[in-house]
Amino acid sequence: MKTIKRRSFLANVAITSALATVTLPSEAKPKDKKFVHHVYFWLKNPSNEADRTKLIEGLTTLSKVPTIRFHHIGVPASTNRSVIDRSYSVSWMLFFDNLEQEEVYQTHPIHLKFIADYSHLWEKVTVYDSEQV
Amino acid sequence: MKTIKRRSFLANVAITSALATVTLPSEAKPKDKKFVHHVYFWLKNPSNEADRTKLIEGLTTLSKVPTIRFHHIGVPASTNRSVIDRSYSVSWMLFFDNLEQEEVYQTHPIHLKFIADYSHLWEKVTVYDSEQV
Repeated sequence: MKTIKRRSFLANVAITSALATVTLPSEAKPKDKKFVHHVYFWLKNPSNEADRTKLIEGLTTLSKVPTIRFHHIGVPASTNRSVIDRSYSVSWMLFFDNLEQEEVYQTHPIHLKFIADYSHLWEKVTVYDSEQV
Repeated sequence: MKTIKRRSFLANVAITSALATVTLPSEAKPKDKKFVHHVYFWLKNPSNEADRTKLIEGLTTLSKVPTIRFHHIGVPASTNRSVIDRSYSVSWMLFFDNLEQEEVYQTHPIHLKFIADYSHLWEKVTVYDSEQV
């Protein structure tokens, strides 16, 4: 229950921050610029459903790193135009309050264990880190 | 004022939905799988600050398409590891309730006007559409 409460609290923090962002983007402080960390995974065996399920299970565990304000685990949508890259297997998108919080995530024990336990599954990752303007 | 109220309403919808996602991801209905549309823009003149500012202004206008539940406009963060792609100029990340709402956005007059007015600025776009698992 404690975990659920804490996650709800974090969700509320993210929500308050998101609302402020939507209505008052220009008032964000330099340290408060919402940080989006978006990772795309290409599996070694992209057609292996079990591998994809396993990676998603790992990401679900990884989502417990406490500095994560919001997470989204996705797979390629059915949209298909020339500009769309549908070649990846799994999308992992995170919001942090700022760069410092993302750095805490990078070296958090849960993250290090995720890499140790699951990195054999993927062939390539591409990361885009974006700070809100 | 009407616009502000409407945007606050939409933000609240997004927030309620986000909270549900964080706590109850497995209960999402097939039609309700949160859709992330992430676009990366490479400008023709990446070192031209005015062009980047102009594109960001255009995206701010584009954010008024009513089916958008949340938007984030970003630029590459200072993070720099081998897996990070920092070569893009502007990141444009959107949440929709589902694929159908994203299709409404694609053909919305505000979107078509954005393409007509600003597409001369960019050399390349890459899009990743991800549906929540």
